Amino acid sequence: MATSSATTSFDSISSLRDALPALHPLASLTKDELRLVSTVVKQHNAKQQAQTPCQFRRIYFMEPNKKLVIEYLKAENAGLPLPPLPPRRAQALFYFKGELPFMECIVDIGHARVVGQRVLEGMHGAGDDEEMFKVAAGALASPMVKKELERLQLPEGCEVVAEPWPYGTDDEPQSLRLFEVWMFLNSKESKHHPSANFYGHPLDFAAVVDGRDFSVIRIDRMPTTAAFQAATDPNTRYKHHQDSEYAPELIPGGLRRDLKPIHISQPEGVSFTVEGEIVRWQKWEFTLNFDLREGMILRNVKYDGRPIFYRMSASEMTVPYGDPRTPVHRKSAYDFGECGAGQTANNLQLGCDCLGVIHYIDGLGCTPEGEPITLPNAICMHEQDAGIGWKHTNVRTGRADVTRARELVLQLILTVGNYEYALYWIFDTAGVLHWEVRATGIMSVTPIEDGVDAASIKYGTVVAPGVFAPHHQHLFNLRIEPAIDDYEDSAIVYEETHPMPRDPLSNPYGVGFESHTTPVTHESAFNLDWQTNRVVKMVNPNKLNRFSGRPVGYKLVAPPTQLGLAARDSMHGIRGEFVDNHVHVTKHSEKEMYAAGEHNWQSVGGQGGCRTWASRGRPLVDDEKTTPVLWFTLGFTHGTKSEDWPVMPVETFRMHFKPVGFFEVNPALDVAPSTQLFNKSTSADVSCCKKANL
Amino acid sequence: MATSSATTSFDSISSLRDALPALHPLASLTKDELRLVSTVVKQHNAKQQAQTPCQFRRIYFMEPNKKLVIEYLKAENAGLPLPPLPPRRAQALFYFKGELPFMECIVDIGHARVVGQRVLEGMHGAGDDEEMFKVAAGALASPMVKKELERLQLPEGCEVVAEPWPYGTDDEPQSLRLFEVWMFLNSKESKHHPSANFYGHPLDFAAVVDGRDFSVIRIDRMPTTAAFQAATDPNTRYKHHQDSEYAPELIPGGLRRDLKPIHISQPEGVSFTVEGEIVRWQKWEFTLNFDLREGMILRNVKYDGRPIFYRMSASEMTVPYGDPRTPVHRKSAYDFGECGAGQTANNLQLGCDCLGVIHYIDGLGCTPEGEPITLPNAICMHEQDAGIGWKHTNVRTGRADVTRARELVLQLILTVGNYEYALYWIFDTAGVLHWEVRATGIMSVTPIEDGVDAASIKYGTVVAPGVFAPHHQHLFNLRIEPAIDDYEDSAIVYEETHPMPRDPLSNPYGVGFESHTTPVTHESAFNLDWQTNRVVKMVNPNKLNRFSGRPVGYKLVAPPTQLGLAARDSMHGIRGEFVDNHVHVTKHSEKEMYAAGEHNWQSVGGQGGCRTWASRGRPLVDDEKTTPVLWFTLGFTHGTKSEDWPVMPVETFRMHFKPVGFFEVNPALDVAPSTQLFNKSTSADVSCCKKANL
Repeated sequence: MATSSATTSFDSISSLRDALPALHPLASLTKDELRLVSTVVKQHNAKQQAQTPCQFRRIYFMEPNKKLVIEYLKAENAGLPLPPLPPRRAQALFYFKGELPFMECIVDIGHARVVGQRVLEGMHGAGDDEEMFKVAAGALASPMVKKELERLQLPEGCEVVAEPWPYGTDDEPQSLRLFEVWMFLNSKESKHHPSANFYGHPLDFAAVVDGRDFSVIRIDRMPTTAAFQAATDPNTRYKHHQDSEYAPELIPGGLRRDLKPIHISQPEGVSFTVEGEIVRWQKWEFTLNFDLREGMILRNVKYDGRPIFYRMSASEMTVPYGDPRTPVHRKSAYDFGECGAGQTANNLQLGCDCLGVIHYIDGLGCTPEGEPITLPNAICMHEQDAGIGWKHTNVRTGRADVTRARELVLQLILTVGNYEYALYWIFDTAGVLHWEVRATGIMSVTPIEDGVDAASIKYGTVVAPGVFAPHHQHLFNLRIEPAIDDYEDSAIVYEETHPMPRDPLSNPYGVGFESHTTPVTHESAFNLDWQTNRVVKMVNPNKLNRFSGRPVGYKLVAPPTQLGLAARDSMHGIRGEFVDNHVHVTKHSEKEMYAAGEHNWQSVGGQGGCRTWASRGRPLVDDEKTTPVLWFTLGFTHGTKSEDWPVMPVETFRMHFKPVGFFEVNPALDVAPSTQLFNKSTSADVSCCKKANL
Repeated sequence: MATSSATTSFDSISSLRDALPALHPLASLTKDELRLVSTVVKQHNAKQQAQTPCQFRRIYFMEPNKKLVIEYLKAENAGLPLPPLPPRRAQALFYFKGELPFMECIVDIGHARVVGQRVLEGMHGAGDDEEMFKVAAGALASPMVKKELERLQLPEGCEVVAEPWPYGTDDEPQSLRLFEVWMFLNSKESKHHPSANFYGHPLDFAAVVDGRDFSVIRIDRMPTTAAFQAATDPNTRYKHHQDSEYAPELIPGGLRRDLKPIHISQPEGVSFTVEGEIVRWQKWEFTLNFDLREGMILRNVKYDGRPIFYRMSASEMTVPYGDPRTPVHRKSAYDFGECGAGQTANNLQLGCDCLGVIHYIDGLGCTPEGEPITLPNAICMHEQDAGIGWKHTNVRTGRADVTRARELVLQLILTVGNYEYALYWIFDTAGVLHWEVRATGIMSVTPIEDGVDAASIKYGTVVAPGVFAPHHQHLFNLRIEPAIDDYEDSAIVYEETHPMPRDPLSNPYGVGFESHTTPVTHESAFNLDWQTNRVVKMVNPNKLNRFSGRPVGYKLVAPPTQLGLAARDSMHGIRGEFVDNHVHVTKHSEKEMYAAGEHNWQSVGGQGGCRTWASRGRPLVDDEKTTPVLWFTLGFTHGTKSEDWPVMPVETFRMHFKPVGFFEVNPALDVAPSTQLFNKSTSADVSCCKKANL
């Protein structure tokens, strides 16, 4: 990652400020704004800056005032004169170099001035790769680590690799910023390969590193048997096992050769346009912000000019591990809050990560010195065919009418150490918005001795000789601000389907069933329920569908998945504010953006989050007339298995936001019929002789 | 549908038989076999045939003896001398023309002789379009219907359309074969169009038709308000409302014009081969049978030569309606058993129903006279890209390894009156087999008077003026015969994930969780459970994964969906043998193939089915050493909405069969990396000016 020193002197702030163009209220922070913000912060801390310069962890664009933005959007949509632009503010999060207190400084961009600055007591900033590399180097240079490596008597020519993780606090708040550094090894055979899989050789100790100077403060020995207690024998030696490689050049047996290419082309170009951050496609219009923390934020999502969502994002995810043995029990990543889905976004490559006709969008990052840096190709966007969209054949006439479904796919793939998530927002031609996540990458593993009764360990799986993959969960939370056909009038309800009681007058045959709708009137939490087909809807109680007489709405369609398994009073339970329920509903606040609170690195609770906010139980309808926020939790319980090793095929979860009475007819009714003239498909030659000739 | 009279004289049976080639035990019934079977049946009933000729409803290939087939497959797989071919038998189901008793005749094909014939007392045969047309014509010709139409005083120039349904019996077994014929109307404006949507104008009566002579035996008046009682006013007139058209030429406002084509090509051809009914693709090999009832049957599914499934099919589906008002309460279609997924399969069109490079497979049907007919393009098969397959970036070196997922898709789309289902079996490069269903077509609707308080009716939705769509369910059942790495040793277990109890020695931090496996030892039924993440696995207890020490297996991955809502003692509850539980496990029997019993038309229970068979509770492991059968129920509760009108965008459900310790590494590890050289993608031009120029 390139860095550069600040190039702007403090006295140029006003010229920087005056050069800023007027921006739409939903526009992301720009490079010039970011540079202005860091300059303002450095000037504000000029004295300390000279001694211990500001080391920026993040500079975030702060959520703009919703009331002001709505006034603006309403005027914009109606073609009326626009009201004044809402103030643009940024949050700078930083350390003074080599010092401990974690600092927050709020900057008013338009006035180029500090609104406030404070120490975030007991909290810690998010990490990045650069810091991780320093931590790893610090660990490897440590005499304590070297002593452990000597104990192990490693084979000649191998290479030790240190893998820092945020320290998942398990007791009192830690004043130090800590890393738990897991240790691995590359064999001499594969170490020169850029994809050598060191995870295939886990070592039996970890190092706890101090984030100030990257020194090691403690060695943790790892458990290597089913026993809870870690190994302590000072004479334990390293036992080398087979490599577990995934790089195409390294895998035993070579690659399969019989997969023929599929080419996807759009000879007339794509059907979408991008104007700044505004994307338009098939009656959909939305603003797409790249965000260092949430990756992608959708704002002002409209269909045919009618608003549906004010703001949508994946707000957090956590990965608690089910292995109870210390120090593995501390593994509980918060990949968005601790690292950031945008901060760790891959540079997506044409024809590799995306197939077809692709548009790429760069992200904006920030160096420790406060200089903007481009994160190239952080998001990609393309259209794809999605099979039959609707079809009906009139059997009397033999005439078939068929359309295909088309999707507009936004993709971001993040890498956090061993693991990757591919995140998707997908729009379709039937008025449905989908969210998808694919989990892939390499499982986090621990060493295991030969001869252990593998089948008897119920909290994980031995996936290769010497390699144990603990079971874990991936729990995600989506944050949704509905704007159902109006920016101000959305309400949350849930609907259930129940059998009608048998009754000689109303249900004499016992076959009747009906839907019951329950409004969510107060801040609260609840679960999905397949038995009653409980579905959460966002509705506009003031706009009724002309035919059904019911409020126009969108429903959230997702299967119920297992919730957090850690004890409620365990550290994973306490920190995991969103893992107890599928659904939380809260009153809107620009200060409540993240499902497990704002600063997750070594968090010990107490910062708020879904559980805390929902439990206030305040009425949702009151004089403030804000639209409630819907938070949705979903996840995978990942029972590890050998098929996920050494790299895991994608595990996919897709959910949907579907219109319910929002439209008066099928919104895909006017999609042109699917014809061969348009689609130009071909017949396959499937003869076996072809195969024989290969 | 073309018909032809029998062209083969009875005395040619032996020459027909002698001309039959030896066929693989898993081969479908051939045209020549079908002709032989019908000839044998006609000869067997020669005397009656002269007076009242056999009218064949179906001729099915009967499930071959599993023990004999397994012997054959094992020898075949091992390259050993093959044992004798198992006997091939067919089941002919027929009526004598114009008579009532429903007949079954079993024919031994190899010996060209009848094994047995019997009257199926109280049962009725499946329908087909030809019979439906006769029923419709009979209804329209009836004086009783004409009288109702006169009462309605229909607008001049309109066209009345009759839509026969199987009569969903609601009380005692009916000796008559009955149809409930719903009545609709095409407006004079659209009636000449081959896709005119008569469902948009439901009339207020139905006719009950006798299947022998197509005469009307009763008129049922329809409910037209929220009141349970149907309208009886002899002076009720027809009220005309707006048309609800879906044909592209008829929809108001015309078609959207901004969707650009996507072309999918495979310049080097497809990656699969088809040899007879054997399909080979990416280490997968399976036999694909077209079946008039189940649509597609997969047999002998293997990966890299290792068997996984002996037989898989969608065994039944039912659509119970939640509208309690008579006669709507009788609506409970059994589309596979009453009509047949293959019998009603669409003739799929290149570039319309399938995009890319496509292979088509014909089906085999049977005329009432017993002649084979080809059902063209009943199944299509193609490869598709499925996005990221696996990915990992080594952040230390910046090197990314990424492969794409590839799928082989089998598709069959069936039309049953107003509705269609698209059915899919999908194989992927990571050893996963998926089953998908997409529900589309036109909802079954009833008339509703203007002025009714639409929002107050909880068992359905007013979707257009005069049109009420009752809520309903689509419940499917999959029947699976596992053969996990061996044809004979599969067992069923379920696995749950539970928090470990807090314990100072084994789980001091309260974060531990673990998987518990429970063998299913007896015939039984149970549900999925998201709270414990209950997952059903098919395992081979005699083959252990080398690393995990656990049995090799495949798991069924599906979300739990709502089960049958009709009262257990209602007719829908009694007939719906598979709707009480997600999972049924039974001992194998070739006589137990269909989840709601064999003959569903006007069924009243008592024919067996999942509930009955599972409740026997027999031990699954016994001297017979058969592999148990797994039945899985899933469904949609379709709360109707205006977006589903006048034709419904697909509602999709996908489930998965995933390897669990079946392989020692990720089976997609050897898929070649995704490169631009291979994929040849292009960058999009997304400028807005292009849009402005349109």
